[in-house]
Amino acid sequence: MNLKKDKLISVSFGEIALKGGNRGYFEHQLINKIKSVTKEFSRVNIYKDQGKLYIESDESDIDPIIRKVRNVFGIVYISPCYRVEKNMESIGNLAAQIAREKKEDLGKEELSFKIESKRADKNFPLKSPEISREIGGFVLKNIDGMKVDVHNPELKINIDIRTNAYIYIERFAGRGGLPIGTNGKGLLLLSGGIDSPVAGFMMAKRGVELSALHFHSYPFTSERAEEKVKRLAGTLEDYCGNIKLYKINLLNIQKEIRKNCPEDEMTIISRRFMMRISEYIAKEMGINCLITGESLGQVASQTIEGLTVTNASVNIPVFRPLIGMDKTDIIDISKDIGTFEISIEPFEDCCTVFLPKHPVTKPRIEDIENSERNLNIEELVNSAVKEMEIIEFK
Amino acid sequence: MNLKKDKLISVSFGEIALKGGNRGYFEHQLINKIKSVTKEFSRVNIYKDQGKLYIESDESDIDPIIRKVRNVFGIVYISPCYRVEKNMESIGNLAAQIAREKKEDLGKEELSFKIESKRADKNFPLKSPEISREIGGFVLKNIDGMKVDVHNPELKINIDIRTNAYIYIERFAGRGGLPIGTNGKGLLLLSGGIDSPVAGFMMAKRGVELSALHFHSYPFTSERAEEKVKRLAGTLEDYCGNIKLYKINLLNIQKEIRKNCPEDEMTIISRRFMMRISEYIAKEMGINCLITGESLGQVASQTIEGLTVTNASVNIPVFRPLIGMDKTDIIDISKDIGTFEISIEPFEDCCTVFLPKHPVTKPRIEDIENSERNLNIEELVNSAVKEMEIIEFK
Repeated sequence: MNLKKDKLISVSFGEIALKGGNRGYFEHQLINKIKSVTKEFSRVNIYKDQGKLYIESDESDIDPIIRKVRNVFGIVYISPCYRVEKNMESIGNLAAQIAREKKEDLGKEELSFKIESKRADKNFPLKSPEISREIGGFVLKNIDGMKVDVHNPELKINIDIRTNAYIYIERFAGRGGLPIGTNGKGLLLLSGGIDSPVAGFMMAKRGVELSALHFHSYPFTSERAEEKVKRLAGTLEDYCGNIKLYKINLLNIQKEIRKNCPEDEMTIISRRFMMRISEYIAKEMGINCLITGESLGQVASQTIEGLTVTNASVNIPVFRPLIGMDKTDIIDISKDIGTFEISIEPFEDCCTVFLPKHPVTKPRIEDIENSERNLNIEELVNSAVKEMEIIEFK
Repeated sequence: MNLKKDKLISVSFGEIALKGGNRGYFEHQLINKIKSVTKEFSRVNIYKDQGKLYIESDESDIDPIIRKVRNVFGIVYISPCYRVEKNMESIGNLAAQIAREKKEDLGKEELSFKIESKRADKNFPLKSPEISREIGGFVLKNIDGMKVDVHNPELKINIDIRTNAYIYIERFAGRGGLPIGTNGKGLLLLSGGIDSPVAGFMMAKRGVELSALHFHSYPFTSERAEEKVKRLAGTLEDYCGNIKLYKINLLNIQKEIRKNCPEDEMTIISRRFMMRISEYIAKEMGINCLITGESLGQVASQTIEGLTVTNASVNIPVFRPLIGMDKTDIIDISKDIGTFEISIEPFEDCCTVFLPKHPVTKPRIEDIENSERNLNIEELVNSAVKEMEIIEFK
């Protein structure tokens, strides 16, 4: 028996399948993104077959490609699979071969299995249950020690009838979400902490193309603190693609605030300046929204009053994907995406400079605006932005 | 042997333990909330013992009280437990009794176990590992068929030395978060869909006291649709306490928009009116923020441009806890909290009235503001609010 089969990768995408008129665009973005994360591999070819994507490559590249591609947003499942001639004989022979190999691999006398079929090509002569029944019977007849278990099989063989026929036995969960670039651009306020990288990840997962803005207070904050932020941005790039990192020195503004405003308002007024500068840069760069890692009630500046006063300093929409999350949930995500270990390194950030002993927790907008009258807001923003540094990775 | 022991409930709270100066207030809110959900039970008494709360009640009420209290935000774990005299003999006798009963219950010849001790009262003469070792030895000596397994025991006996001594063997996860009322007030825009109840739940979990606002288009929308919204609010009350439900008829505004504005802008202009009315009501009622179930990219009006234009109609901060979540994750939460089955009932809501065939997906603020010049915004908002209905449960 000379069974012709090709090993390749199948990719299922979920939510974008619902996108109606936009579907073509979403698929296009997804394919582009897959191409970009696989460009280090030679001989990669991506094609569509009735609602799934397939990635052809050298067989030895399949596992490393899966590891790369499974982090691309928009993908629900990814599987190594076989493409086989679209007839019951070839499908049956391959299913039998897979069953025999699996049984040998596991060194079992008896192996329970189940066939699950899906017929996207409605012209295929057999319906899905008929395919499963026939191929199941063929496996039982040809491989000793196999038994059917539809509820809890040790081996599940999936048959997928599209323009081509495919068989796969395992699949890995992707990240879900929507392909990067399908939902505009966002400017992430990236501190060195645990929360902001997670916030960026979540919005990127909804299709937002990220840029990042980091505020520091050099030389009051160290270069190592900035290195840490670069590494956080670099880790986010594994999921989000290229990220431009803007760096602003807030020290001069902080000094002016300390000189001219009440001590307990230091944090909230600093944050309002960060928001204003962020909005300024976003507008300059054609970015549609700001993204922050704020979580209601987590720290003194993240009371509802604090967020209200901070929010009032800008008109651009501010997305706070962590606003309703507990710290423990945020930490879980940061561990999962690999930013946690970097975030917990002990380097100070600009928020710890001139930190008031008793920051105001329920600021009133009138009081804060009144204090800010002692500052030349526009000039301070402009001169901070003028000194901005831009870091591009890769 | 006459072992004096009382059965009661222990409550562990996580994040609020971190709250420093606010800790007293948070604990106070948590105790109030526990009192309120247990008021149907007679003889409930709550006391604090070195960082944990304990609930005393009739023994037959313990299980139903746990079912109620475990949904109170701010609680990380809840356990049925025994309070026992604070000496090693009493603790040992109770541990042995628990082991014997568990072994009989499970009908096992042999039962593996582990003792885990925590000594909050540092004046207790033995340290935690010593307590575990001694009590473990006592159980081994007195109960046949017990064996120690520190990694994967079938029975774990937890000893907790505070002002009193406590023993528990199982604990249930609470909801986490922060007690309701510790983070201000929010007005939830509650449609009949899957998303908005989940958004309300998440913000309430962060300590926000909820009110809800529902827009309908009666008689274009049915009374049964409104019944559904009432049931959603009622389900949220299981977690969030009393919710005031405001109802606004949007039909007149929708008719005006249809008469005076481009058809493809119907949805976005309607949403801007909803936001304006929400802000108006929030300010009247002393509420600090709006809460919506918007999720970026989920539907045509939830593009980044759509959210920007919607957001620009108000100054009050808008919290969107689902902004970075996939639909599948939102559905998981709605199933968990019991709103899913209600949300999927097929009653229309106001957003489906006059739904444009091709809603604008990338609205520009200038265009929308231009179209709105044909409307008397203030008068429309005022007359809609004048007809507002208020529903209070219970």
